Amino acid sequence: MTVTARLAELGIELPPAAAPVASYVPVVVQGDLAFVSGQLPFIDGTLVTGKLGNELGVERGIQAARACGLMILAQLQAAGLLDRVARIVKLGGFVASEGDFTDQPRIANGASDLMVEVFGDAGKHARSAVGVPVLPLNAAVEVDAIIALTP
Amino acid sequence: MTVTARLAELGIELPPAAAPVASYVPVVVQGDLAFVSGQLPFIDGTLVTGKLGNELGVERGIQAARACGLMILAQLQAAGLLDRVARIVKLGGFVASEGDFTDQPRIANGASDLMVEVFGDAGKHARSAVGVPVLPLNAAVEVDAIIALTP
Amino acid sequence: MTVTARLAELGIELPPAAAPVASYVPVVVQGDLAFVSGQLPFIDGTLVTGKLGNELGVERGIQAARACGLMILAQLQAAGLLDRVARIVKLGGFVASEGDFTDQPRIANGASDLMVEVFGDAGKHARSAVGVPVLPLNAAVEVDAIIALTP
Repeated sequence: MTVTARLAELGIELPPAAAPVASYVPVVVQGDLAFVSGQLPFIDGTLVTGKLGNELGVERGIQAARACGLMILAQLQAAGLLDRVARIVKLGGFVASEGDFTDQPRIANGASDLMVEVFGDAGKHARSAVGVPVLPLNAAVEVDAIIALTP
Repeated sequence: MTVTARLAELGIELPPAAAPVASYVPVVVQGDLAFVSGQLPFIDGTLVTGKLGNELGVERGIQAARACGLMILAQLQAAGLLDRVARIVKLGGFVASEGDFTDQPRIANGASDLMVEVFGDAGKHARSAVGVPVLPLNAAVEVDAIIALTP
Repeated sequence: MTVTARLAELGIELPPAAAPVASYVPVVVQGDLAFVSGQLPFIDGTLVTGKLGNELGVERGIQAARACGLMILAQLQAAGLLDRVARIVKLGGFVASEGDFTDQPRIANGASDLMVEVFGDAGKHARSAVGVPVLPLNAAVEVDAIIALTP
């Protein structure tokens, strides 16, 4: 089954691929790897903003991370690479966090679980997840990715 | 000499490989590279927590970073890859830091020096080291890695 | 035209390659990729320090990010790799930020725009840019890089 068909089966609709907010490109392919720029969480076209902790709850944070993951897939689709995904290799999760919020892994799972839902075993990836004080445009979460492609 | 033998010679005992604290896997191999997920610092089974600065001293931070490095090796061992390490390519060091703590490089050396101790010239790597406000489970340090493997 | 000639044409003079501030090396080549360690912003030999926001203005931050980019090129030059650059694949931008500063993309453009200025289309890269509370030596910006090389 193609990834596009699998997304349809899951009822997952990808967002429009967001334009970079600055001087870079969304995806670079080098050899059999695609490097995807850090993606921000848009839900229904609106950026999820704020810091995890008192300001933003865990459930909303998980949704935000999932939205970052969907945007990674949208960028791959826009680059004509979505059906060439062989393996999600690595996700880097940056979670805007108040100083006492330590549940970054649960937040980043929003993106990680999406990849396994869509790609099965090929969606299982290495990951780092860290807290940061603030992200571009006050986004709640940013996720970048390294993805292996079939030739 | 195998890496396993070299560790024995140095008297270094690896910790049990920690289970991921969320939905990802510890190591993904893609081509000749192993991507190791961000590892947290367990010493004698206990996570080293807190922020570098007034709360946590430099020596303890260095020990924590070394513990992250040992956990990277433990994950490689658990994946059957330890004796296939050809080069430590890149370490990413995230140091939980109070706002005026600027000695992240010295902390991250705990992991970097370990790699050179174990692998010699093949342990010399590229690195980034940055301060972060807070890490998963309130860990003091997190280190991820890209490692080249022999076929 | 060689990169060295292109830099001369642009009137860009590279800084002396800074020695690592700790136990790592500036560049590791693995296959056709060069991994460049996180570089700090030196302008006329002086490190640009402070946090973006009230303490440090946007224009100075952009200059700092450009200085990080120049140092990446200086490290490639010192390693004899500058004229083998095939593509700037990925930049990782870490911007020391006060909690309400959300313009990290504009800051990181200092490095990104430099790459496009020097390498043209081959300088267009994937990127992540995040805020951090503090960087080594109180640097304002740190940028690391993955770069594809010709054989």
